[in-house]
Amino acid sequence: MAAQRRIDLVLDSVKRLLRIGATANLLNLLQKQHPADLAQIFSDLGDKEREAAFSLLADRNGRLAMEAVSELGPEAGAALLGTRTAEEIAKLAQEIPSDDAAALIDYLPEELSGAVLDLMRPKESSVVENLLEYAERTAGRIMNPHVFALSEDITVGEAITELQTNRDVEMVFYLYVVDERRHLVGVTSLRRLLLVAPETPLKRIMTADLISARADMDQEEVARQVASYNLLAIPVVDEENKLVGVITVDDVIDVIKDEATEDIYRLAGVAGDERAFTPAGESLRKRLPWLGINLITAFLASSVVALFENTIDRITALAIFMPVVAGMGGNAATQTLTVVVRGIALGELTWGNSRKALMKEALVGLCNGVILGLLAAAVAGFTRGSLTLGLVLCAAMIINMFVAATAGTLIPLGLRAADIDPALASSVFITTLTDIIGFFSFLGLATIFARFLIP
Amino acid sequence: MAAQRRIDLVLDSVKRLLRIGATANLLNLLQKQHPADLAQIFSDLGDKEREAAFSLLADRNGRLAMEAVSELGPEAGAALLGTRTAEEIAKLAQEIPSDDAAALIDYLPEELSGAVLDLMRPKESSVVENLLEYAERTAGRIMNPHVFALSEDITVGEAITELQTNRDVEMVFYLYVVDERRHLVGVTSLRRLLLVAPETPLKRIMTADLISARADMDQEEVARQVASYNLLAIPVVDEENKLVGVITVDDVIDVIKDEATEDIYRLAGVAGDERAFTPAGESLRKRLPWLGINLITAFLASSVVALFENTIDRITALAIFMPVVAGMGGNAATQTLTVVVRGIALGELTWGNSRKALMKEALVGLCNGVILGLLAAAVAGFTRGSLTLGLVLCAAMIINMFVAATAGTLIPLGLRAADIDPALASSVFITTLTDIIGFFSFLGLATIFARFLIP
Repeated sequence: MAAQRRIDLVLDSVKRLLRIGATANLLNLLQKQHPADLAQIFSDLGDKEREAAFSLLADRNGRLAMEAVSELGPEAGAALLGTRTAEEIAKLAQEIPSDDAAALIDYLPEELSGAVLDLMRPKESSVVENLLEYAERTAGRIMNPHVFALSEDITVGEAITELQTNRDVEMVFYLYVVDERRHLVGVTSLRRLLLVAPETPLKRIMTADLISARADMDQEEVARQVASYNLLAIPVVDEENKLVGVITVDDVIDVIKDEATEDIYRLAGVAGDERAFTPAGESLRKRLPWLGINLITAFLASSVVALFENTIDRITALAIFMPVVAGMGGNAATQTLTVVVRGIALGELTWGNSRKALMKEALVGLCNGVILGLLAAAVAGFTRGSLTLGLVLCAAMIINMFVAATAGTLIPLGLRAADIDPALASSVFITTLTDIIGFFSFLGLATIFARFLIP
Repeated sequence: MAAQRRIDLVLDSVKRLLRIGATANLLNLLQKQHPADLAQIFSDLGDKEREAAFSLLADRNGRLAMEAVSELGPEAGAALLGTRTAEEIAKLAQEIPSDDAAALIDYLPEELSGAVLDLMRPKESSVVENLLEYAERTAGRIMNPHVFALSEDITVGEAITELQTNRDVEMVFYLYVVDERRHLVGVTSLRRLLLVAPETPLKRIMTADLISARADMDQEEVARQVASYNLLAIPVVDEENKLVGVITVDDVIDVIKDEATEDIYRLAGVAGDERAFTPAGESLRKRLPWLGINLITAFLASSVVALFENTIDRITALAIFMPVVAGMGGNAATQTLTVVVRGIALGELTWGNSRKALMKEALVGLCNGVILGLLAAAVAGFTRGSLTLGLVLCAAMIINMFVAATAGTLIPLGLRAADIDPALASSVFITTLTDIIGFFSFLGLATIFARFLIP
């Protein structure tokens, strides 16, 4: 937490210096910060303060300002950048790697992004435009197209010289080797270059068996490859296996975080791109449709209750325990659903081993139902002085928790098999099911045994 | 998905070769796999098959077998390893880095892990025992203690020679520089060594301002540092700033995934260490207490309904719309809670900007309540032919969705301020609140306006 305290101190100073207008001191302080810390400071400032601090820094140290903007993420970054003119944005965008520039420009309002691209140097803007042609969430969209590659025909000594002369390429972890038509043919490392004689042909020490990503590969799959093979970077190739870019592990970490956020959100019925500070109007627009669907499903559940209006009319106590049956089913379903959806996302649960998972969840659901059903029966039977009411409650809970467990497993697995994101089988859908099954079994059984229940 | 298909094909062959007992072919096939792929194959096999395949590989290629076991994760890995004798485990554990060995040994049954440590080479077992002395989930526990360091007093040429002679150190991204008492004083990179003359003192080209982690730092904080500063590795130091280990980005990715899983689980009331294939008995034991708490809260909500038994007795239609008020409040609360909890986890939402978040959520909650309340009122009023019933439903929904939004923001923020994991403010607790507020406001308003409601 020491880092956080340091940032909080800097934040206080920034606010104070802004207030008293001590621009020289402020600039000095901002320039000493790491881009990631600056991003944190920017996001903690008020809108006016943020724009003032950014504009001050952008005029003096465009690269640092833009690195901080990149760290803010494309949405918040573009919002901050959008406060400047197209000319200024075009100039600033050229300070950072093209993939970061592309991500920001993509989030600018359309007329502004067009103007910015027109104002950039033709070479830079064409690189950005190329990147934007790849579909969203693919390897091509997040790769850095400036990838350093060595020719397979040179020697180790020549390779070292090339590295020494290309001082401005981004940090190199792996050295990719290409043939004369830029087909990716191998990989080696700086360290391995140092372990052999300079006249050794590069071909002899490279590894030909390497993992690469196609430019149209889904970014989630790219992240899975980098994570499971413990890579620091993955080369990106086109359909002819020509090297077109590289994705480094720091971008993969962002993908992993975003995908985890999306899973968490989808389970709760929130749009994947909503953030804590998405404007209220936009949040409302994003959440309302989902709640609207819920309203329909809620009325569906309430129509099940309506079927048994006569029974409730005669035995009011049923209304008191209805929420217990439905609620416990919903909670048990959420537990199962969460474990299953996460298991699928982490690649642990596949169609192949789904039978095993189903058997397990069904067993757990049944046991939970019996234990909690008996407990609930004891409480209800005792407080209302009716053994039959207790037994009806118990039976309904067993049925509902068993259904919750099996549906909580089968629905996400089925969606996955149909190539739909299983997280969309959100707790909300499954809760509708447990509401309906819960009300139906509880009120249905109560109707059947009504003559034993009427006080 | 091509990688997955390849693994599935290998899996089928492994099963077939096991069935016909073609051990030579099987061994040949297994040895060609990447450890991560082997781990996937192991986890897809049945228990008996997995043990047979692992034991075959362990006898012939202990290192590869153990790398695959490490990739399985400590829990599943230790379960597989536990099928062998202590002697065999001790021998196998020495094939992998000490941090991976420590993680596995920690998950073995106590008497077995003690025996294994006794049987390992004293030097190796003391390294493992040292690691196990750090608290769980700290930097010390997940670091690799074999960190390559250079003395600050040597030249660049001498540093390169040292790298050439230490062929067995793990891949080096950063070269850490230490003083004569092993205090961490700087960092440089292999690439930078190549850009200067060999007689340059190392001190001259190192960066003294570097980010390190204390051994007792929480692993989540370590992951946050590595992710926000885009590091490939972070050096770990003790309280005197002496270099004791290094954590690489692949371990950080595992931490990020585990922490995301834990957040998702906690929001749903599932224990952080449960997985899709945790045995049924253990899952039951882990989930029951949580469902037990829910049963208590469910009875709490039902006791609110019981307060209004007389009103329901007179107006049965109330029982039909009760679930709508409670359910919609629960769904809205889950949305807010998820966005807030994730915002806190990603570091976007802090105590400093919480007022802004609260205002936003309250506004969204109010608008949702008004829009959906009016819709629900129209449906209820129309189907039951009672304007008053519709208005009572609408008012209750507005109240409940406003409470859902403010509580969904304040509870996790409050927990965070009290240093409790905000994800524990799980949907379940908040749903109890919305059940209670929903029932109370709906049935309470109905009681007040009862004379307009009685048909």
